[in-house]
Amino acid sequence: MGLFSKKKQISVQTIRRLPQYLRVLYSWHAYGRGLASSTALADETQIPAIVIKKDLQAVGAPSKMRAGFKIKGTISAIENFLGWDNLNKAFLIGAGHLGAALLGFSGFKNHGLEIVAAFDTHPERVGNEIHGVHVYHTAQLQRVIDEKKLKIAILTVPGAAAQGITDTLVACGIKAIWNFAPVKLNVPADVAVQQEDIASGLAELCARLKSK
Amino acid sequence: MGLFSKKKQISVQTIRRLPQYLRVLYSWHAYGRGLASSTALADETQIPAIVIKKDLQAVGAPSKMRAGFKIKGTISAIENFLGWDNLNKAFLIGAGHLGAALLGFSGFKNHGLEIVAAFDTHPERVGNEIHGVHVYHTAQLQRVIDEKKLKIAILTVPGAAAQGITDTLVACGIKAIWNFAPVKLNVPADVAVQQEDIASGLAELCARLKSK
Repeated sequence: MGLFSKKKQISVQTIRRLPQYLRVLYSWHAYGRGLASSTALADETQIPAIVIKKDLQAVGAPSKMRAGFKIKGTISAIENFLGWDNLNKAFLIGAGHLGAALLGFSGFKNHGLEIVAAFDTHPERVGNEIHGVHVYHTAQLQRVIDEKKLKIAILTVPGAAAQGITDTLVACGIKAIWNFAPVKLNVPADVAVQQEDIASGLAELCARLKSK
Repeated sequence: MGLFSKKKQISVQTIRRLPQYLRVLYSWHAYGRGLASSTALADETQIPAIVIKKDLQAVGAPSKMRAGFKIKGTISAIENFLGWDNLNKAFLIGAGHLGAALLGFSGFKNHGLEIVAAFDTHPERVGNEIHGVHVYHTAQLQRVIDEKKLKIAILTVPGAAAQGITDTLVACGIKAIWNFAPVKLNVPADVAVQQEDIASGLAELCARLKSK
């Protein structure tokens, strides 16, 4: 949909599939495997081999003729495409159950994301650590963002609070927001918002179930 | 990708967008509005109007010529398409932070899902209630599934435990699994698995950020 117009046209669908390839490739690489065919990847991911081949070619994954893709080079190509070869410093706002679940998710570091601070207003949470991450009061946002050079905000606040916090984040200079609150955020054109919609997955499952 | 071959060809992308339309339509309906144009929906959802029009026509949403879609009828058409007009009884396995976050998510009832039981093996969790839902020991799975006529399993266990639990679920007759564990599950062909991949959203955000 023209979202990525400054680089090669790579579809949102392709981008969303890349982490699945990475997960399999990391594990094969750890086992010392050197080459990956698109059919072998298809077995692991349940994505058609032809789709996988096109996706990997689109990000410039190196291949060895018919033998398949070079695993190490393909990992580098995907990580480089997504910017996951550099660690982005992120912070989380709203340290409730979902926030705590994300703080405990060990996979983010593989994905170029390090959550280095959390914010909340609840007296029982402020000042504590969750999975080793300090919880600051939301009033400290600007200071901590500046001090720690934070770039990506992860929003796990209730829907009613999301736009207000977003306005503050924009004022603090944040350019990327990963939004888990179930509301659409209004932001200036230079701010990237990724909306997570828990109900989308449920809709897919229900449609599958009805079609069985 | 031919997933829904027994009904009209409706793409996974369309299905994933339907909950977003529902959310806006519910709120407009609550305000007493009767008609929704695809351009007005486009403003709220940031999805192109032409895509919205095709999506809604695909699920058979009733429209009034150029005036737009009838809100009440469109809500019914989407709910009916997804089976969300009947409440499916679901249960959750793994009552950690992510499990607790899902148990606390009030939106599921609008989406035809009622989580009526949770399972865990941790002594501190078993026997307690989380957001009003009782936590049973995993050893009780078969009994509770039968007694409560449960249909959909939500899997929020660590990756290492996911396949073992899945085998048990399949043996208990479960036909739909919503999997939040970051592993591919092996199931018989008549079992529907919806894989949630937290890293997909992050990949999209990173690609957007790099393209700015």
